[in-house]
Amino acid sequence: MFVLNRWYVAGWSSEVSDRPLARTLLNEPVVLFRTEDGRAVALEDRCCHRNLPLSHGHVEGNCIACGYHGMVYEPGGRCVKVPGQDVIPSGACVRSFPLVERDQVVWIWPGNPDQADSSLVPLYPIHGDAKWAHRCDHYVIKGNHELINDNLIDLSHVGYVHGRTIGGTPEAHSVANIKVERTDDGVIVRRWMPDSVPPPTYVRAVGFAGRIDRWMEITFLPGLIRIYIGANDVGQGLDEVGHMDRLGIRIFNGITPETEGTTHYFWSAAHNFKVDQPEVTEAFHGEIAATFEEDRIVVEAQQERFTQFPGRKTVFIKSDAGGVHARRVIAALLASEAQASHSNAESVA
Amino acid sequence: MFVLNRWYVAGWSSEVSDRPLARTLLNEPVVLFRTEDGRAVALEDRCCHRNLPLSHGHVEGNCIACGYHGMVYEPGGRCVKVPGQDVIPSGACVRSFPLVERDQVVWIWPGNPDQADSSLVPLYPIHGDAKWAHRCDHYVIKGNHELINDNLIDLSHVGYVHGRTIGGTPEAHSVANIKVERTDDGVIVRRWMPDSVPPPTYVRAVGFAGRIDRWMEITFLPGLIRIYIGANDVGQGLDEVGHMDRLGIRIFNGITPETEGTTHYFWSAAHNFKVDQPEVTEAFHGEIAATFEEDRIVVEAQQERFTQFPGRKTVFIKSDAGGVHARRVIAALLASEAQASHSNAESVA
Amino acid sequence: MFVLNRWYVAGWSSEVSDRPLARTLLNEPVVLFRTEDGRAVALEDRCCHRNLPLSHGHVEGNCIACGYHGMVYEPGGRCVKVPGQDVIPSGACVRSFPLVERDQVVWIWPGNPDQADSSLVPLYPIHGDAKWAHRCDHYVIKGNHELINDNLIDLSHVGYVHGRTIGGTPEAHSVANIKVERTDDGVIVRRWMPDSVPPPTYVRAVGFAGRIDRWMEITFLPGLIRIYIGANDVGQGLDEVGHMDRLGIRIFNGITPETEGTTHYFWSAAHNFKVDQPEVTEAFHGEIAATFEEDRIVVEAQQERFTQFPGRKTVFIKSDAGGVHARRVIAALLASEAQASHSNAESVA
Repeated sequence: MFVLNRWYVAGWSSEVSDRPLARTLLNEPVVLFRTEDGRAVALEDRCCHRNLPLSHGHVEGNCIACGYHGMVYEPGGRCVKVPGQDVIPSGACVRSFPLVERDQVVWIWPGNPDQADSSLVPLYPIHGDAKWAHRCDHYVIKGNHELINDNLIDLSHVGYVHGRTIGGTPEAHSVANIKVERTDDGVIVRRWMPDSVPPPTYVRAVGFAGRIDRWMEITFLPGLIRIYIGANDVGQGLDEVGHMDRLGIRIFNGITPETEGTTHYFWSAAHNFKVDQPEVTEAFHGEIAATFEEDRIVVEAQQERFTQFPGRKTVFIKSDAGGVHARRVIAALLASEAQASHSNAESVA
Repeated sequence: MFVLNRWYVAGWSSEVSDRPLARTLLNEPVVLFRTEDGRAVALEDRCCHRNLPLSHGHVEGNCIACGYHGMVYEPGGRCVKVPGQDVIPSGACVRSFPLVERDQVVWIWPGNPDQADSSLVPLYPIHGDAKWAHRCDHYVIKGNHELINDNLIDLSHVGYVHGRTIGGTPEAHSVANIKVERTDDGVIVRRWMPDSVPPPTYVRAVGFAGRIDRWMEITFLPGLIRIYIGANDVGQGLDEVGHMDRLGIRIFNGITPETEGTTHYFWSAAHNFKVDQPEVTEAFHGEIAATFEEDRIVVEAQQERFTQFPGRKTVFIKSDAGGVHARRVIAALLASEAQASHSNAESVA
Repeated sequence: MFVLNRWYVAGWSSEVSDRPLARTLLNEPVVLFRTEDGRAVALEDRCCHRNLPLSHGHVEGNCIACGYHGMVYEPGGRCVKVPGQDVIPSGACVRSFPLVERDQVVWIWPGNPDQADSSLVPLYPIHGDAKWAHRCDHYVIKGNHELINDNLIDLSHVGYVHGRTIGGTPEAHSVANIKVERTDDGVIVRRWMPDSVPPPTYVRAVGFAGRIDRWMEITFLPGLIRIYIGANDVGQGLDEVGHMDRLGIRIFNGITPETEGTTHYFWSAAHNFKVDQPEVTEAFHGEIAATFEEDRIVVEAQQERFTQFPGRKTVFIKSDAGGVHARRVIAALLASEAQASHSNAESVA
């Protein structure tokens, strides 16, 4: 059901501590904790004795102890202690997941651990860059992850769903100059909106007095969507790299399926203005959060309809181009994983 | 599962406005709205693009616009605008349902639109008659619609379920003189209860001092049950038409399945006394609402048992005669619709 | 799914009155009530007419009347009155369950009534013994009954789950001297914990100043687990019968499946100290209740994992010996009931 041989966001670094954290990731119950050494660990969240979630237990040094009968597991998932007996039963272990911690993000590899190459972890240096300020956030959305991809890749909805916040005029969005670049493992959508009305959020941020030139670049990879946004007064210069932007926004969107119908949404919104004023960061985060709340309502209502009436006919429109390609990327990865697992089964037989 | 080629109550006229109203009717998600022209419209409640319920959108003139990407639908269900492109994708449409608005009721035809003959809409002129005063109400009951039919057709339960309100003495009800008249598409049950104790509600209404003669006439059609009630001091005259009634009550019971296990209940209780005193209408409505709450508890408890233990044996008693016939009427209509759809399938092949 | 030919706890005597009580027991809806004569009665909780739960009705003399149309049932389950008609429909009856009331407990026999031998009711004279004081309690736990059995039979969890209450040092528990005696229809587990740290509850109860000798005896039968506990100052004498115990506790654990995934837990905790001080009984009950709340959290978390991931591999450890035998006892009884019902079917054919 899910592409498994990828790095997905398991949580923010700040969430992982010596208090075990339970989280279902790609249909798998996971306990996240930080060892005495400071290392983040992810284990299958159940004791192999009587199935109590290990997240009910406590961290003991570099291990975790079950809260029922005290069985102790090391970071690799092997049981290393059973109180009251000297011999550890053979097969007493739980699954351990490869983790990489980078850019304030804890990345998990839910697939075959042999393929967990840490050089494949997506980079996000903005989280550590002093020119940007941000806050991290996390929700669970009651919708399939592909509905969230659709939503973020096709920003033509901004004028309709976010009219009162970041929207601006709907027409500006639907007639935006859009280029969709398809890559092997993703999509890049670029939108230019010259000479448009600045949305209220932008005005509050940097005080635009008149119309603006505005750009967005959305880079989709399965599990992560980066949205880079820039704006400047009309005619004052604008480039894709953002050097000349009076207003710059960088949004990290970690999209990790929880179950088929629910999805973890890990996001941060970094801004390039007033970065030394925490109250500005807080207020800006709150404004973006309000727009994501508008998206959540849409995605959850869609999910409900898709669940209730699975077979109903739908049509595609022009602005779906990016989203459709993203679905193809995921479908191709799923097919390739199914193929690989089939070949493995054959070579074993 | 449901008889579809009938007019059912979709809502009260007062409920349908330029703010779209979402309602599931006979397992179908429907959005109800009123156009700029004042016409009530019912469409399938999902956009054919990405399935967002149209009830999340807004009325635009005589059309409705989706709240996600702004696609616009006219009252017939055709998509007439896709922002950002000139061509409407072929097949971009949703289902539109025939509606008739009459007697403050919005009636919907969930079946074959070609058979939607507005002359078949049940009449209820009492809603517009100055000799009667009423208020409209609506609940969703967690019970199958046939359990509600049973409840309303067989009023021998009144003494047991409504002892504290409209009940009076249980014996008076169970020994009432009852005539059941079976019609092709319904049932009429007539009950005479001469020389009986007036229930508290009746006494409060018109101040009966002693015993009363009392009649009820229940007319069942699939989707609508009219209950007409009259009472007078003992021996002061009583007729079925109600001319001589000191106390007259007319109850409209619109029974529209929402799903197999839940039902919309649209009701009004009109009275012929103190019709110019709104506080009397309000108080009377409240008293009837209290008895319907007693019925709701019964029907929902039955539904729970039927769902948990579907196969358990039940017996019939004499007072079931009307309800049993109502079930036969519905079964015959269902069989005839199944037959018709079978014949159609054959003639197409 | 359940062993049926056993006496199970249906409720406490104090719960059964002339106000009908609805309770699902071993997947069967039951209404419990007390007749005018003072006899406790258990009937199938639905009227055989239209399935309204009889618990919505009222006790009428030694019978119960349905709250919908007034049908009356005697304690044997036969309908003896149908208002409005003289003849009782043939087959108008509901199931009646054998009940025995003893030691403040109402025991029900959910299986074949012909085998309901009241001499098989487990005894619990402590409830009527002036040397002990207790209070009765009842919860529904969202877990399968065998998970509760596991929990109560293997007290090696006490140090981990109840560290803050009755636990004491985990090591004392896991190295306890344990003997497991397997009987035909149950298990007896005896644990001696000499020279151990008294848990806070014990100290509060009788003021232990130093270390204690401590024993527990757990007697499991399907449906009932008796836990007897004693403690004394180190070296002051200790015996299994409890004559010399400074602190004595007797816990009644009635385990009655409600459904496959939920279980009634009827418990009392009797103590042998300050038995004439109701506030001590109340406080002691509260402390034990707090530990059972800790168990409830564990059992419900296990149930969730077993339900979500039914096939996952588990291992056994030494302390499971008692619980494993209890599962074998239940499995053997289930097999024997299946066999008997098969033989009956054959002899009928």
